[in-house]
Amino acid sequence: MALNEFGLIQRYFQGLTPAATQVTLGIGDDAAVLSLPPGHELVWSIDTLVEGVHFAERADPVALGHKALAVNLSDLAAMGADPHGVLLALTLPHADERWCQGFAEGFGALAVACGIPLVGGDMTRGPRAISVTVLGRVPQGSAVQRQGAQPGDHVTVTGPLGDAALALRLGTAAPEALRTALDRPSPHLAAGRVLRAFASAAIDVSDGLMADLQHLCTASRVGAVIRTRDLPRSDAFAAATSGADAVALQASGGDDYVLCATVPPAHLAPAQAALRAAGLPPLQVIGEVNAGDTARLMDEAGRAVVLNATGYRHY
Amino acid sequence: MALNEFGLIQRYFQGLTPAATQVTLGIGDDAAVLSLPPGHELVWSIDTLVEGVHFAERADPVALGHKALAVNLSDLAAMGADPHGVLLALTLPHADERWCQGFAEGFGALAVACGIPLVGGDMTRGPRAISVTVLGRVPQGSAVQRQGAQPGDHVTVTGPLGDAALALRLGTAAPEALRTALDRPSPHLAAGRVLRAFASAAIDVSDGLMADLQHLCTASRVGAVIRTRDLPRSDAFAAATSGADAVALQASGGDDYVLCATVPPAHLAPAQAALRAAGLPPLQVIGEVNAGDTARLMDEAGRAVVLNATGYRHY
Repeated sequence: MALNEFGLIQRYFQGLTPAATQVTLGIGDDAAVLSLPPGHELVWSIDTLVEGVHFAERADPVALGHKALAVNLSDLAAMGADPHGVLLALTLPHADERWCQGFAEGFGALAVACGIPLVGGDMTRGPRAISVTVLGRVPQGSAVQRQGAQPGDHVTVTGPLGDAALALRLGTAAPEALRTALDRPSPHLAAGRVLRAFASAAIDVSDGLMADLQHLCTASRVGAVIRTRDLPRSDAFAAATSGADAVALQASGGDDYVLCATVPPAHLAPAQAALRAAGLPPLQVIGEVNAGDTARLMDEAGRAVVLNATGYRHY
Repeated sequence: MALNEFGLIQRYFQGLTPAATQVTLGIGDDAAVLSLPPGHELVWSIDTLVEGVHFAERADPVALGHKALAVNLSDLAAMGADPHGVLLALTLPHADERWCQGFAEGFGALAVACGIPLVGGDMTRGPRAISVTVLGRVPQGSAVQRQGAQPGDHVTVTGPLGDAALALRLGTAAPEALRTALDRPSPHLAAGRVLRAFASAAIDVSDGLMADLQHLCTASRVGAVIRTRDLPRSDAFAAATSGADAVALQASGGDDYVLCATVPPAHLAPAQAALRAAGLPPLQVIGEVNAGDTARLMDEAGRAVVLNATGYRHY
């Protein structure tokens, strides 16, 4: 280790999250030891964020700590999993105490809010990068997968689309609400937990709605039609955009970290009731699954909308 | 994703390891889903290797694939865990098919040999780095920790010391056997599995024997004395070094990936019998745990040997 790994870990990461019953052995050994309640399965994911690719050199470390954990928790949310534990592997050019303190603050606050214990990790020298790996748990057999959508299912999302993409475009001119969506997305864990009883398939929206929905369609061997007029917008988004531009941001912008779930018609009302009972916003129905193989977008006049890198056009 | 992530993953990593009963859902969803047999706990670790820090730009990708997995499996071995699953996060400057093919070959061969399924991961663009996270399983309560060593316990190692450090020093002049120890270490999983019934504490030797033993001593709140004459040497090592130089390489060289385990006197004979029954080499007793707080090295005349960055000296 070129860094003073032990000093930094002890100072900023040990004790960052409260004790949790599933943790037999946390930070400081060759590995962490965790228990799993009987009748449960593990859900497991890793994501890496690289400086200059996923975040700028001067990015606020507090926001980065939040986002590095949030994007991983969003994967757990998509599977309907409850957070179980997290490991953090940091690569840093030098032992930067100020950066570590900020990062730990953002990471720790979200970890505590979501009830996920930090149980170990790794710290090494090199070009700045952050690898986070999360474990979740689900009752055996209840994980929501990308496969499982059936023709006739509703396509739904758990929150507004386009906020993060608009914030990225507006830069420093972005209103606070949009900026928060980009820098500090809230993983939709509670909605995912409810959806595991009702969704036929799900994915989290990170690359952009239509791209991610296509992944779900491919895994499920189905197609889907999405109506542009039903894509949900936040108030801040609606105030700052209009028309064609808005559709492109919403359908292909990415970084939304809402869930896109397919729900059989008979499950929709019970799902909405369960979300209401949990104090969560209702699902937004944005389209339907069909027997094709492609996720398509349709405007208010019923014409196909094709998105490309610079926007979208009608056919 | 700047890389054509899906193409590379499908081509080189999907199907790399055979199906395993514990894998409910493998590569290709938001997360992997794994089961855990009743009465078991999880052992979980992550390690990152960075180009220019842990490996050279021109390092053989096959050897690198092996080593990236081996150093993680060595952490499982130290805990006495059986391999359960692995996730691979690759950061690459560009979609380098040749490199991926080599890396997958080395990684896959060791994964198959050790019976650990590759169940997912992440691929992204950036300065070359490899994060591997492994899950292992142990019968509940049987993980071997760094804490637990008691005064009077034997200090043992599961294999020879110094081969990798000597290979590093000799460079291209290193004989094949030493080169293999450096580039393709074999994680001591089988020995770790036997030791979980007999060891009071254990750690894997990655930073160097005395440094890692000090971590074990600190966690166990004990000291230890190690005898230089009892440090085990491979034939290739003995043929290429002598005297003082050999001791420094063995005691502080690092990258050995053998296990250092403390064993109560009453457990030593049964541990040796169990290792023999499993077809494994015997433990080498290299010293004893005492009531102090420091791991010390002693020469044949009973004098303390102090290692420093440039070698060692007598006091």
